[in-house]
Amino acid sequence: MTTAIQDTYPDDVAHCYGCGKLNQHGLHVRSAWDGDETRAVLLPQPYHTAIPGYVYGGLIASLIDCHGTGSAALAAYRAAGRPTDSQPPLRFLTASLHVDYLRPTPLGVPLEARGRIVELKPRKVIVDITVTAAGELCARGQVVAVLMPESLLERLRQG
Amino acid sequence: MTTAIQDTYPDDVAHCYGCGKLNQHGLHVRSAWDGDETRAVLLPQPYHTAIPGYVYGGLIASLIDCHGTGSAALAAYRAAGRPTDSQPPLRFLTASLHVDYLRPTPLGVPLEARGRIVELKPRKVIVDITVTAAGELCARGQVVAVLMPESLLERLRQG
Repeated sequence: MTTAIQDTYPDDVAHCYGCGKLNQHGLHVRSAWDGDETRAVLLPQPYHTAIPGYVYGGLIASLIDCHGTGSAALAAYRAAGRPTDSQPPLRFLTASLHVDYLRPTPLGVPLEARGRIVELKPRKVIVDITVTAAGELCARGQVVAVLMPESLLERLRQG
Repeated sequence: MTTAIQDTYPDDVAHCYGCGKLNQHGLHVRSAWDGDETRAVLLPQPYHTAIPGYVYGGLIASLIDCHGTGSAALAAYRAAGRPTDSQPPLRFLTASLHVDYLRPTPLGVPLEARGRIVELKPRKVIVDITVTAAGELCARGQVVAVLMPESLLERLRQG
């Protein structure tokens, strides 16, 4: 597995609860290329439960959300032929999120999210994502990710 | 505001990270009727951030998720003319979740989710939900909720 894109986010945009390396309370979703797909693995905490024994759907949505924007960034850098630590940063926000919960997701095993880039434009990337647990497909999702405007990046940089 | 539906969930299905009264680490989303709409209010924690100053999208998805299943239960009890603490419990699971993020959601103020029942069948309820912050519409969502099968409830009851 190659470097996780979230590890390369500049510090001023690395506080996301779902995937920011600087969020001490966060989930730390980390997305990287695995061939032509993207992959992230997350081990839910025992309290991330929906009903006893099963994973909370909002956590699955969060995994899909952050893996979606991470995958969008990975794809944008690859398309531009740029290393992920080059300037300006290509950081994406979620415009929309869809999740179909296919079966109850067992708690206690790692969740594997795999992303497939289905549309790639300079400012908009669509990513289809599957989530499996113990080898079983549990959820399918789609994220429409949009490039963070330079003006917003600049504002965050100035604090 | 009337009683929150999540406060009436039986103990064996009250551990949800998003809305279970028995989950000590959880978000404690609480949904109640407000006229013909349902309403829940959630104050994000300072660490529930996406980028500095704005709320994490996965938290908004979690609010919509639990307010959706809670609204579905409220609607099912009302349609059946049953009090929410009567047996058997009408507890719903999320079949699908959709969120459109309309603008960055400011952190530091309560989020208000309002639900509207758009389809109501005995085993399936669809809820449209808006999320506002400081009076501004920030996200729209839809939850397709399905009634938890009696067999699963029974299994949980037996532990």
